Amino acid sequence: MESQNKFPRKFKDVSLEELRDKVAEFAKVRNWDQYHSPRNLLLALVGEVGELSEIFQWKGEVERGLPNWSSDDKKHLEEEISDVLLYLVQLADVCGLDLGQAALSKIVKNAQKYPLRD
Amino acid sequence: MESQNKFPRKFKDVSLEELRDKVAEFAKVRNWDQYHSPRNLLLALVGEVGELSEIFQWKGEVERGLPNWSSDDKKHLEEEISDVLLYLVQLADVCGLDLGQAALSKIVKNAQKYPLRD
Amino acid sequence: MESQNKFPRKFKDVSLEELRDKVAEFAKVRNWDQYHSPRNLLLALVGEVGELSEIFQWKGEVERGLPNWSSDDKKHLEEEISDVLLYLVQLADVCGLDLGQAALSKIVKNAQKYPLRD
Amino acid sequence: MESQNKFPRKFKDVSLEELRDKVAEFAKVRNWDQYHSPRNLLLALVGEVGELSEIFQWKGEVERGLPNWSSDDKKHLEEEISDVLLYLVQLADVCGLDLGQAALSKIVKNAQKYPLRD
Repeated sequence: MESQNKFPRKFKDVSLEELRDKVAEFAKVRNWDQYHSPRNLLLALVGEVGELSEIFQWKGEVERGLPNWSSDDKKHLEEEISDVLLYLVQLADVCGLDLGQAALSKIVKNAQKYPLRD
Repeated sequence: MESQNKFPRKFKDVSLEELRDKVAEFAKVRNWDQYHSPRNLLLALVGEVGELSEIFQWKGEVERGLPNWSSDDKKHLEEEISDVLLYLVQLADVCGLDLGQAALSKIVKNAQKYPLRD
Repeated sequence: MESQNKFPRKFKDVSLEELRDKVAEFAKVRNWDQYHSPRNLLLALVGEVGELSEIFQWKGEVERGLPNWSSDDKKHLEEEISDVLLYLVQLADVCGLDLGQAALSKIVKNAQKYPLRD
Repeated sequence: MESQNKFPRKFKDVSLEELRDKVAEFAKVRNWDQYHSPRNLLLALVGEVGELSEIFQWKGEVERGLPNWSSDDKKHLEEEISDVLLYLVQLADVCGLDLGQAALSKIVKNAQKYPLRD
């Protein structure tokens, strides 16, 4: 498997709060809040995870960096990963959770669960 | 359903790039990169979506803000949502995608797909 | 919630072995066996579970028997549930498992785990 | 990939109707019907698909027949595949669907969608 260092690191720095505000506004102006109960959003998330899986389903093992993928396939993947992320952000939002803080705390907890060996 | 405005908005502003760097470092120092192929991470993501679903499975419809949930249940939910997010960030990373930019672009595309009615 | 007794019980008696043979033959004559590795089939299964979830995602709570669903919606649901089943049968098959026996054994194990209270 | 003919074909012939009756009785005598709404069962199914995925998540590509798996791993897989099947059967049941007939019809529809080339 290739080193992660080969991937570009100059990514746009987008915050979870920015995404949350954008998708909340998106739903509000369309009057979609009425549909965004936690379980509705959870099932929508599962639906998008399904679409993400469909991209990978017949490919056998896939190498890091997707070296043989067409730009169309990569574009499709970006869209489906984004759909999962956006529903996840919305689910956290309607549940009243601070997703960013929760994720940082989980990393700390994982580090305690899997301590570094000397 | 309650208004989203009732939820606290003073959340910690965490960026996807920060999360990506933290989980990449976490895997690297544990020598776990060898396991982090795209499909391995995708299946790990599906596993976490399953754990997230288990929290909601016997609850019937759940109200926004989780008004009747115990703090333990909310803590558990925060952890499982975080696990999904962290695997999603890792999946995007090993695929070489700019997740933040992809998510912003998807919101723009969604706005074109579902234009506001006058 | 309504009693299960209200649902028709005169269903067609289809065996898992019959389904397994039909889908194995289906794949064989199309030369699709080459794609049917366990993890490919698992991801295809996840994809179909996503499509199944999409049917339910914006509906809020749904009553047993689907009293208000159109026949088109019910037909769509039948197809997606079937897709999940058919991939599950194929996954068990390529893993060399006896799915019917495994399911019967699991029911026995569940009965031991959740004994009847007097 | 190995030929499917190498797998044993003398499997127990279990019908979907038998499984449906057993799990319906199981739930009834435990007074669990009250929890078995369609969306509750769907989320329970998603949870089990997650547990099934966790078995495969760090394995990289897996060969048909699971040649290098321990009998414990195979037993675990049998249990998780069974859990998915049993929730799927229950979901179909509470929705009032004839799962066996639906699956046979879907195979016919698939054959029309993907006709054999001469």
